[in-house]
Amino acid sequence: MISTAEIKWVRSLHEKKFREREGAFIVEGEKLVGEALESGFEVLKHWRRDDIGENAMSRISCLSSPSPALAVLRCRPEAPLPAPGGLCLALDGIRDPGNFGTLLRIADWFGIGAVFASPDCAELYNPKVVQATMGAVFRKEVHYAPLERICAKWRDAGLPVFGTFLDGENIYRADLPADALVVAGSEGSGISAAVSALVSGRLTIPAFGSNGAESLNVAAATAVVLSEFRRR
Amino acid sequence: MISTAEIKWVRSLHEKKFREREGAFIVEGEKLVGEALESGFEVLKHWRRDDIGENAMSRISCLSSPSPALAVLRCRPEAPLPAPGGLCLALDGIRDPGNFGTLLRIADWFGIGAVFASPDCAELYNPKVVQATMGAVFRKEVHYAPLERICAKWRDAGLPVFGTFLDGENIYRADLPADALVVAGSEGSGISAAVSALVSGRLTIPAFGSNGAESLNVAAATAVVLSEFRRR
Repeated sequence: MISTAEIKWVRSLHEKKFREREGAFIVEGEKLVGEALESGFEVLKHWRRDDIGENAMSRISCLSSPSPALAVLRCRPEAPLPAPGGLCLALDGIRDPGNFGTLLRIADWFGIGAVFASPDCAELYNPKVVQATMGAVFRKEVHYAPLERICAKWRDAGLPVFGTFLDGENIYRADLPADALVVAGSEGSGISAAVSALVSGRLTIPAFGSNGAESLNVAAATAVVLSEFRRR
Repeated sequence: MISTAEIKWVRSLHEKKFREREGAFIVEGEKLVGEALESGFEVLKHWRRDDIGENAMSRISCLSSPSPALAVLRCRPEAPLPAPGGLCLALDGIRDPGNFGTLLRIADWFGIGAVFASPDCAELYNPKVVQATMGAVFRKEVHYAPLERICAKWRDAGLPVFGTFLDGENIYRADLPADALVVAGSEGSGISAAVSALVSGRLTIPAFGSNGAESLNVAAATAVVLSEFRRR
Protein backbone atom coordinates (compact mmCIF):
# COMPACT_ATOMS: atom_id res chain seq x y z
CA MET A 1 0.00 0.00 0.00
CA ILE A 2 0.97 3.62 -0.45
CA SER A 3 -0.64 6.64 1.22
CA THR A 4 -1.63 9.86 -0.49
CA ALA A 5 1.03 11.66 1.55
CA GLU A 6 3.65 9.20 0.30
CA ILE A 7 2.58 9.72 -3.30
CA LYS A 8 2.90 13.44 -2.81
CA TRP A 9 6.32 13.02 -1.20
CA VAL A 10 7.71 10.82 -4.00
CA ARG A 11 6.31 13.16 -6.63
CA SER A 12 8.03 16.08 -4.95
CA LEU A 13 11.34 14.23 -5.41
CA HIS A 14 10.95 14.60 -9.17
CA GLU A 15 12.19 18.13 -8.54
CA LYS A 16 15.73 19.06 -7.59
CA LYS A 17 14.58 21.55 -4.97
CA PHE A 18 12.79 18.84 -3.00
CA ARG A 19 15.52 16.24 -3.52
CA GLU A 20 17.90 18.69 -1.88
CA ARG A 21 15.52 19.60 0.91
CA GLU A 22 14.71 15.95 1.67
CA GLY A 23 18.18 14.57 0.95
CA ALA A 24 16.51 11.75 -0.99
CA PHE A 25 16.26 10.51 -4.56
CA ILE A 26 14.34 8.07 -6.73
CA VAL A 27 15.56 4.85 -8.34
CA GLU A 28 13.40 2.93 -10.80
CA GLY A 29 13.49 -0.33 -12.66
CA GLU A 30 13.64 -3.95 -11.57
CA LYS A 31 17.38 -4.21 -12.03
CA LEU A 32 18.35 -0.81 -10.65
CA VAL A 33 16.13 -1.15 -7.57
CA GLY A 34 17.65 -4.58 -7.00
CA GLU A 35 21.11 -3.02 -7.09
CA ALA A 36 19.94 -0.18 -4.85
CA LEU A 37 18.87 -2.60 -2.13
CA GLU A 38 22.35 -4.15 -2.16
CA SER A 39 24.22 -0.89 -2.56
CA GLY A 40 24.75 0.23 1.01
CA PHE A 41 22.66 3.34 0.35
CA GLU A 42 19.93 3.82 2.96
CA VAL A 43 16.61 2.79 1.43
CA LEU A 44 13.84 5.00 2.84
CA LYS A 45 10.96 3.32 1.01
CA HIS A 46 10.36 1.00 -1.87
CA TRP A 47 7.31 -0.21 -3.70
CA ARG A 48 6.44 -2.78 -6.30
CA ARG A 49 3.73 -2.22 -8.88
CA ASP A 50 2.14 -5.49 -7.87
CA ASP A 51 1.60 -4.15 -4.35
CA ILE A 52 0.41 -0.62 -5.02
CA GLY A 53 -1.22 -0.95 -8.43
CA GLU A 54 -0.58 0.48 -11.88
CA ASN A 55 -2.28 3.76 -11.11
CA ALA A 56 -0.29 4.63 -7.98
CA MET A 57 2.93 3.54 -9.69
CA SER A 58 2.30 5.77 -12.68
CA ARG A 59 1.74 8.71 -10.31
CA ILE A 60 5.05 8.33 -8.49
CA SER A 61 7.13 7.26 -11.51
CA CYS A 62 9.42 9.61 -13.42
CA LEU A 63 9.27 7.36 -16.48
CA SER A 64 6.79 7.53 -19.33
CA SER A 65 6.12 3.81 -18.90
CA PRO A 66 6.31 3.17 -15.14
CA SER A 67 8.56 0.30 -14.17
CA PRO A 68 7.60 -2.55 -11.81
CA ALA A 69 9.72 -1.20 -8.94
CA LEU A 70 10.63 2.16 -7.42
CA ALA A 71 12.76 2.98 -4.40
CA VAL A 72 13.51 6.19 -2.52
CA LEU A 73 17.08 6.36 -1.24
CA ARG A 74 18.92 8.72 1.07
CA CYS A 75 21.47 10.84 -0.79
CA ARG A 76 25.04 10.16 0.26
CA PRO A 77 26.77 13.07 2.06
CA GLU A 78 29.50 14.57 -0.11
CA ALA A 79 32.83 12.99 0.68
CA PRO A 80 35.92 15.16 1.18
CA LEU A 81 37.91 15.86 -1.98
CA PRO A 82 40.42 13.07 -2.59
CA ALA A 83 44.10 13.97 -2.98
CA PRO A 84 45.44 14.03 -6.56
CA GLY A 85 46.55 10.62 -7.87
CA GLY A 86 45.44 7.68 -9.99
CA LEU A 87 43.41 8.04 -13.16
CA CYS A 88 40.57 10.48 -12.51
CA LEU A 89 37.88 12.16 -14.59
CA ALA A 90 36.63 15.75 -14.46
CA LEU A 91 33.32 16.64 -16.13
CA ASP A 92 33.18 20.23 -17.31
CA GLY A 93 29.72 21.68 -17.92
CA ILE A 94 28.02 18.38 -18.79
CA ARG A 95 24.43 19.61 -18.39
CA ASP A 96 22.67 16.84 -20.30
CA PRO A 97 21.55 14.23 -17.75
CA GLY A 98 21.84 11.34 -20.24
CA ASN A 99 25.42 12.26 -21.12
CA PHE A 100 26.31 12.83 -17.48
CA GLY A 101 24.95 9.44 -16.43
CA THR A 102 26.60 7.66 -19.36
CA LEU A 103 29.93 9.26 -18.47
CA LEU A 104 29.63 7.92 -14.91
CA ARG A 105 28.91 4.48 -16.35
CA ILE A 106 32.04 4.73 -18.52
CA ALA A 107 34.10 5.91 -15.51
CA ASP A 108 32.83 2.90 -13.60
CA TRP A 109 33.75 0.50 -16.41
CA PHE A 110 37.28 1.85 -16.69
CA GLY A 111 37.78 1.85 -12.92
CA ILE A 112 38.31 5.59 -12.60
CA GLY A 113 39.44 6.67 -9.13
CA ALA A 114 37.48 9.85 -8.58
CA VAL A 115 34.98 11.78 -10.67
CA PHE A 116 34.86 15.55 -10.34
CA ALA A 117 32.06 17.68 -11.79
CA SER A 118 31.86 21.43 -12.30
CA PRO A 119 28.94 23.00 -10.40
CA ASP A 120 27.06 23.61 -13.68
CA CYS A 121 26.94 19.89 -14.51
CA ALA A 122 23.74 17.87 -14.24
CA GLU A 123 22.79 16.85 -10.71
CA LEU A 124 23.86 13.33 -9.71
CA TYR A 125 20.44 12.51 -8.24
CA ASN A 126 18.40 13.70 -11.24
CA PRO A 127 16.28 10.64 -12.14
CA LYS A 128 17.53 10.75 -15.76
CA VAL A 129 21.13 10.71 -14.55
CA VAL A 130 20.44 7.85 -12.14
CA GLN A 131 18.78 5.88 -14.95
CA ALA A 132 21.61 6.48 -17.43
CA THR A 133 24.30 5.38 -14.96
CA MET A 134 22.90 1.83 -15.00
CA GLY A 135 23.96 1.44 -11.38
CA ALA A 136 27.26 3.33 -11.49
CA VAL A 137 25.58 5.94 -9.27
CA PHE A 138 25.86 3.43 -6.41
CA ARG A 139 29.53 2.76 -6.98
CA LYS A 140 31.11 6.04 -8.02
CA GLU A 141 31.27 9.16 -5.91
CA VAL A 142 31.00 12.48 -7.68
CA HIS A 143 32.72 15.52 -6.23
CA TYR A 144 31.15 18.79 -7.31
CA ALA A 145 33.76 21.54 -7.22
CA PRO A 146 35.10 24.33 -9.42
CA LEU A 147 37.37 22.45 -11.83
CA GLU A 148 39.92 25.27 -11.85
CA ARG A 149 40.56 24.41 -8.21
CA ILE A 150 40.81 20.67 -8.89
CA CYS A 151 43.11 21.13 -11.89
CA ALA A 152 45.33 23.53 -9.96
CA LYS A 153 45.68 20.98 -7.15
CA TRP A 154 46.76 18.31 -9.64
CA ARG A 155 49.24 20.62 -11.31
CA ASP A 156 50.60 21.71 -7.88
CA ALA A 157 51.13 18.03 -7.06
CA GLY A 158 53.20 17.70 -10.25
CA LEU A 159 50.53 15.63 -12.01
CA PRO A 160 49.26 16.16 -15.55
CA VAL A 161 45.81 17.33 -16.63
CA PHE A 162 44.63 16.10 -20.04
CA GLY A 163 41.87 17.29 -22.31
CA THR A 164 40.80 16.52 -25.88
CA PHE A 165 40.96 19.29 -28.45
CA LEU A 166 40.82 19.38 -32.23
CA ASP A 167 44.46 20.52 -32.40
CA GLY A 168 46.04 18.28 -29.77
CA GLU A 169 48.62 15.50 -29.97
CA ASN A 170 47.54 12.22 -31.56
CA ILE A 171 46.35 10.20 -28.55
CA TYR A 172 47.60 6.92 -30.03
CA ARG A 173 51.17 8.26 -29.96
CA ALA A 174 51.02 10.36 -26.79
CA ASP A 175 52.70 9.42 -23.53
CA LEU A 176 49.83 8.60 -21.16
CA PRO A 177 50.86 8.18 -17.52
CA ALA A 178 49.03 6.13 -14.88
CA ASP A 179 48.36 9.21 -12.74
CA ALA A 180 46.36 11.73 -14.71
CA LEU A 181 43.28 13.89 -14.58
CA VAL A 182 41.23 13.68 -17.79
CA VAL A 183 38.81 16.56 -18.44
CA ALA A 184 35.70 15.96 -20.58
CA GLY A 185 34.05 19.12 -21.91
CA SER A 186 30.47 19.70 -22.95
CA GLU A 187 29.33 18.90 -26.49
CA GLY A 188 28.27 22.41 -27.23
CA SER A 189 31.14 24.44 -25.91
CA GLY A 190 33.97 22.04 -25.11
CA ILE A 191 36.31 22.55 -22.18
CA SER A 192 35.89 26.00 -20.60
CA ALA A 193 38.63 28.58 -21.12
CA ALA A 194 39.57 28.71 -17.42
CA VAL A 195 40.04 24.94 -17.32
CA SER A 196 41.77 24.79 -20.72
CA ALA A 197 44.41 27.15 -19.34
CA LEU A 198 45.27 24.52 -16.71
CA VAL A 199 45.47 21.58 -19.15
CA SER A 200 49.04 20.34 -19.49
CA GLY A 201 48.40 17.71 -22.19
CA ARG A 202 46.25 18.47 -25.23
CA LEU A 203 45.08 15.26 -26.93
CA THR A 204 43.24 14.56 -30.19
CA ILE A 205 41.43 11.44 -31.32
CA PRO A 206 42.28 11.47 -35.04
CA ALA A 207 39.31 11.48 -37.41
CA PHE A 208 39.78 8.74 -39.97
CA GLY A 209 36.92 9.92 -42.13
CA SER A 210 38.12 12.79 -44.29
CA ASN A 211 34.64 13.80 -45.23
CA GLY A 212 33.61 16.41 -42.75
CA ALA A 213 32.96 14.57 -39.48
CA GLU A 214 33.50 17.27 -36.88
CA SER A 215 33.26 15.58 -33.55
CA LEU A 216 32.52 12.49 -31.56
CA ASN A 217 29.90 12.77 -28.88
CA VAL A 218 31.37 13.38 -25.44
CA ALA A 219 30.62 9.88 -24.11
CA ALA A 220 32.22 8.13 -27.10
CA ALA A 221 35.26 10.42 -27.03
CA THR A 222 35.74 9.92 -23.29
CA ALA A 223 35.43 6.15 -23.64
CA VAL A 224 38.15 6.16 -26.32
CA VAL A 225 40.42 8.37 -24.20
CA LEU A 226 40.00 6.31 -21.02
CA SER A 227 40.47 3.12 -23.02
CA GLU A 228 43.79 4.46 -24.31
CA PHE A 229 44.93 5.37 -20.79
CA ARG A 230 43.95 1.97 -19.43
CA ARG A 231 45.40 -0.02 -22.32
CA ARG A 232 48.96 1.11 -21.65
CA MET B 1 5.50 32.09 -46.05
CA ILE B 2 4.12 28.63 -45.56
CA SER B 3 0.69 27.37 -46.60
CA THR B 4 -1.67 25.30 -44.49
CA ALA B 5 -1.19 22.42 -46.92
CA GLU B 6 2.57 22.64 -46.45
CA ILE B 7 2.23 22.63 -42.67
CA LYS B 8 0.07 19.53 -42.94
CA TRP B 9 2.58 17.89 -45.29
CA VAL B 10 5.60 18.55 -43.02
CA ARG B 11 3.67 17.37 -39.98
CA SER B 12 2.82 14.14 -41.78
CA LEU B 13 6.57 13.55 -42.18
CA HIS B 14 6.88 13.20 -38.41
CA GLU B 15 5.52 9.71 -39.05
CA LYS B 16 7.44 6.87 -40.67
CA LYS B 17 4.47 5.82 -42.79
CA PHE B 18 4.35 9.21 -44.51
CA ARG B 19 8.12 9.54 -44.79
CA GLU B 20 8.07 6.29 -46.73
CA ARG B 21 5.11 7.24 -48.84
CA GLU B 22 6.55 10.68 -49.69
CA GLY B 23 10.19 9.58 -49.83
CA ALA B 24 11.06 12.66 -47.81
CA PHE B 25 12.41 13.52 -44.37
CA ILE B 26 12.91 16.45 -42.02
CA VAL B 27 16.14 18.11 -40.97
CA GLU B 28 16.22 20.77 -38.25
CA GLY B 29 18.68 23.14 -36.72
CA GLU B 30 20.77 25.98 -38.07
CA LYS B 31 23.88 23.85 -38.47
CA LEU B 32 22.25 20.69 -39.77
CA VAL B 33 20.09 22.56 -42.30
CA GLY B 34 23.22 24.38 -43.45
CA GLU B 35 24.91 21.02 -44.00
CA ALA B 36 21.79 19.66 -45.71
CA LEU B 37 21.86 22.44 -48.29
CA GLU B 38 25.47 21.53 -49.15
CA SER B 39 24.99 17.77 -48.91
CA GLY B 40 23.93 16.84 -52.42
CA PHE B 41 20.58 15.62 -51.09
CA GLU B 42 17.66 17.12 -52.99
CA VAL B 43 16.08 19.86 -50.85
CA LEU B 44 12.33 19.91 -51.45
CA LYS B 45 11.56 22.85 -49.18
CA HIS B 46 13.16 24.84 -46.42
CA TRP B 47 11.96 27.51 -44.07
CA ARG B 48 13.44 29.87 -41.53
CA ARG B 49 11.59 30.88 -38.39
CA ASP B 50 12.18 34.52 -39.27
CA ASP B 51 10.19 34.03 -42.48
CA ILE B 52 7.26 31.95 -41.31
CA GLY B 53 6.97 32.96 -37.66
CA GLU B 54 7.32 31.20 -34.34
CA ASN B 55 3.86 29.69 -34.45
CA ALA B 56 4.17 28.02 -37.86
CA MET B 57 7.64 26.78 -37.00
CA SER B 58 6.44 25.18 -33.78
CA ARG B 59 3.71 23.41 -35.75
CA ILE B 60 6.07 21.82 -38.26
CA SER B 61 8.97 21.16 -35.86
CA CYS B 62 9.69 17.74 -34.32
CA LEU B 63 11.60 19.37 -31.47
CA SER B 64 10.23 20.56 -28.15
CA SER B 65 11.91 23.91 -28.73
CA PRO B 66 11.63 24.60 -32.46
CA SER B 67 14.89 25.54 -34.10
CA PRO B 68 15.39 28.55 -36.40
CA ALA B 69 15.54 26.43 -39.56
CA LEU B 70 13.84 23.34 -40.98
CA ALA B 71 14.31 21.61 -44.32
CA VAL B 72 12.52 18.76 -46.07
CA LEU B 73 14.84 16.55 -48.08
CA ARG B 74 14.30 13.76 -50.56
CA CYS B 75 15.34 10.36 -49.16
CA ARG B 76 18.24 8.79 -51.01
CA PRO B 77 17.41 5.59 -52.90
CA GLU B 78 19.04 2.56 -51.29
CA ALA B 79 22.36 1.83 -52.91
CA PRO B 80 23.28 -1.74 -53.90
CA LEU B 81 25.06 -3.75 -51.20
CA PRO B 82 28.81 -3.14 -51.37
CA ALA B 83 31.15 -6.11 -51.72
CA PRO B 84 32.92 -7.24 -48.52
CA GLY B 85 36.13 -5.35 -47.76
CA GLY B 86 37.54 -2.50 -45.66
CA LEU B 87 36.46 -1.77 -42.11
CA CYS B 88 32.66 -1.92 -41.95
CA LEU B 89 30.04 -1.75 -39.22
CA ALA B 90 26.86 -3.81 -38.80
CA LEU B 91 24.16 -2.62 -36.39
CA ASP B 92 22.12 -5.46 -34.93
CA GLY B 93 18.73 -4.53 -33.49
CA ILE B 94 19.63 -0.96 -32.50
CA ARG B 95 16.08 0.30 -32.02
CA ASP B 96 16.83 3.40 -29.99
CA PRO B 97 17.02 6.35 -32.43
CA GLY B 98 19.53 8.26 -30.29
CA ASN B 99 21.89 5.28 -30.13
CA PHE B 100 21.45 4.56 -33.84
CA GLY B 101 22.25 8.14 -34.82
CA THR B 102 25.22 8.32 -32.44
CA LEU B 103 26.60 5.08 -33.93
CA LEU B 104 26.42 6.60 -37.41
CA ARG B 105 28.27 9.63 -36.12
CA ILE B 106 30.97 7.36 -34.67
CA ALA B 107 31.18 5.40 -37.96
CA ASP B 108 31.63 8.69 -39.77
CA TRP B 109 34.42 9.81 -37.41
CA PHE B 110 36.33 6.57 -37.81
CA GLY B 111 35.90 6.54 -41.59
CA ILE B 112 33.94 3.30 -41.73
CA GLY B 113 33.39 2.04 -45.27
CA ALA B 114 29.84 0.75 -45.15
CA VAL B 115 27.22 0.62 -42.43
CA PHE B 116 24.75 -2.28 -42.43
CA ALA B 117 21.63 -2.35 -40.27
CA SER B 118 19.29 -5.20 -39.44
CA PRO B 119 15.69 -4.53 -40.52
CA ASP B 120 14.60 -4.11 -36.87
CA CYS B 121 16.97 -1.16 -36.33
CA ALA B 122 15.72 2.40 -36.05
CA GLU B 123 14.84 4.07 -39.35
CA LEU B 124 17.59 6.25 -40.81
CA TYR B 125 15.18 9.11 -41.55
CA ASN B 126 13.54 9.18 -38.12
CA PRO B 127 13.99 12.82 -36.99
CA LYS B 128 15.67 11.71 -33.74
CA VAL B 129 18.15 9.62 -35.71
CA VAL B 130 18.86 12.48 -38.11
CA GLN B 131 19.42 14.84 -35.18
CA ALA B 132 21.73 12.43 -33.33
CA THR B 133 23.91 11.85 -36.41
CA MET B 134 25.03 15.50 -36.32
CA GLY B 135 25.31 15.42 -40.11
CA ALA B 136 26.67 11.91 -40.59
CA VAL B 137 23.31 11.05 -42.18
CA PHE B 138 24.44 13.07 -45.22
CA ARG B 139 27.77 11.32 -45.51
CA LYS B 140 27.19 7.69 -44.58
CA GLU B 141 24.95 5.29 -46.44
CA VAL B 142 23.10 2.71 -44.41
CA HIS B 143 22.25 -0.64 -45.97
CA TYR B 144 19.29 -2.33 -44.33
CA ALA B 145 19.56 -6.08 -44.78
CA PRO B 146 19.37 -9.26 -42.72
CA LEU B 147 22.76 -9.36 -41.00
CA GLU B 148 23.00 -13.14 -41.33
CA ARG B 149 23.21 -12.57 -45.07
CA ILE B 150 25.85 -9.83 -44.76
CA CYS B 151 27.96 -11.82 -42.29
CA ALA B 152 27.76 -14.92 -44.49
CA LYS B 153 28.97 -12.91 -47.48
CA TRP B 154 31.97 -11.67 -45.51
CA ARG B 155 32.81 -15.12 -44.24
CA ASP B 156 32.44 -16.54 -47.78
CA ALA B 157 34.92 -13.90 -48.97
CA GLY B 158 37.38 -15.16 -46.36
CA LEU B 159 36.99 -12.03 -44.22
CA PRO B 160 36.47 -11.91 -40.45
CA VAL B 161 33.36 -10.83 -38.55
CA PHE B 162 33.96 -9.40 -35.07
CA GLY B 163 31.62 -8.82 -32.18
CA THR B 164 32.06 -7.83 -28.52
CA PHE B 165 31.03 -10.28 -25.84
CA LEU B 166 31.68 -10.57 -22.12
CA ASP B 167 33.80 -13.69 -22.66
CA GLY B 168 35.80 -12.69 -25.74
CA GLU B 169 39.51 -12.09 -26.31
CA ASN B 170 41.05 -8.97 -24.77
CA ILE B 171 40.71 -6.44 -27.60
CA TYR B 172 43.98 -4.72 -26.69
CA ARG B 173 45.87 -7.93 -27.42
CA ALA B 174 43.80 -9.25 -30.32
CA ASP B 175 44.93 -9.30 -33.92
CA LEU B 176 42.74 -6.74 -35.67
CA PRO B 177 42.99 -6.77 -39.47
CA ALA B 178 42.28 -3.84 -41.78
CA ASP B 179 39.42 -5.69 -43.50
CA ALA B 180 36.78 -6.61 -40.97
CA LEU B 181 33.10 -6.40 -40.27
CA VAL B 182 32.35 -5.23 -36.71
CA VAL B 183 28.91 -6.07 -35.33
CA ALA B 184 27.36 -3.87 -32.63
CA GLY B 185 24.46 -5.45 -30.73
CA SER B 186 21.60 -3.81 -28.89
CA GLU B 187 21.98 -2.77 -25.26
CA GLY B 188 19.19 -4.93 -24.05
CA SER B 189 19.87 -8.18 -25.80
CA GLY B 190 23.31 -7.95 -27.38
CA ILE B 191 24.14 -9.57 -30.69
CA SER B 192 21.39 -11.91 -31.87
CA ALA B 193 21.99 -15.66 -31.77
CA ALA B 194 21.84 -16.06 -35.57
CA VAL B 195 24.48 -13.36 -36.06
CA SER B 196 26.61 -14.56 -33.12
CA ALA B 197 26.89 -17.92 -34.86
CA LEU B 198 28.58 -16.17 -37.81
CA VAL B 199 31.05 -14.17 -35.69
CA SER B 200 34.61 -15.38 -36.24
CA GLY B 201 36.32 -13.11 -33.67
CA ARG B 202 34.86 -12.62 -30.20
CA LEU B 203 36.30 -9.51 -28.52
CA THR B 204 36.05 -8.09 -25.01
CA ILE B 205 36.81 -4.60 -23.74
CA PRO B 206 38.25 -5.42 -20.31
CA ALA B 207 36.48 -3.80 -17.35
CA PHE B 208 39.07 -2.12 -15.16
CA GLY B 209 36.65 -1.45 -12.36
CA SER B 210 36.27 -4.62 -10.29
CA ASN B 211 33.20 -3.38 -8.54
CA GLY B 212 30.29 -4.61 -10.55
CA ALA B 213 30.20 -2.53 -13.73
CA GLU B 214 28.41 -4.78 -16.18
CA SER B 215 28.53 -3.07 -19.50
CA LEU B 216 29.43 -0.03 -21.51
CA ASN B 217 26.68 1.55 -23.51
CA VAL B 218 26.68 0.45 -27.13
CA ALA B 219 27.97 3.75 -28.54
CA ALA B 220 30.89 3.93 -26.10
CA ALA B 221 31.80 0.27 -26.67
CA THR B 222 31.66 0.66 -30.44
CA ALA B 223 33.80 3.79 -30.31
CA VAL B 224 36.44 1.92 -28.29
CA VAL B 225 36.37 -1.05 -30.69
CA LEU B 226 36.63 1.08 -33.85
CA SER B 227 39.36 3.17 -32.24
CA GLU B 228 41.35 -0.03 -31.61
CA PHE B 229 40.90 -1.17 -35.22
CA ARG B 230 41.94 2.22 -36.58
CA ARG B 231 44.89 2.69 -34.23
CA ARG B 232 46.76 -0.33 -35.58
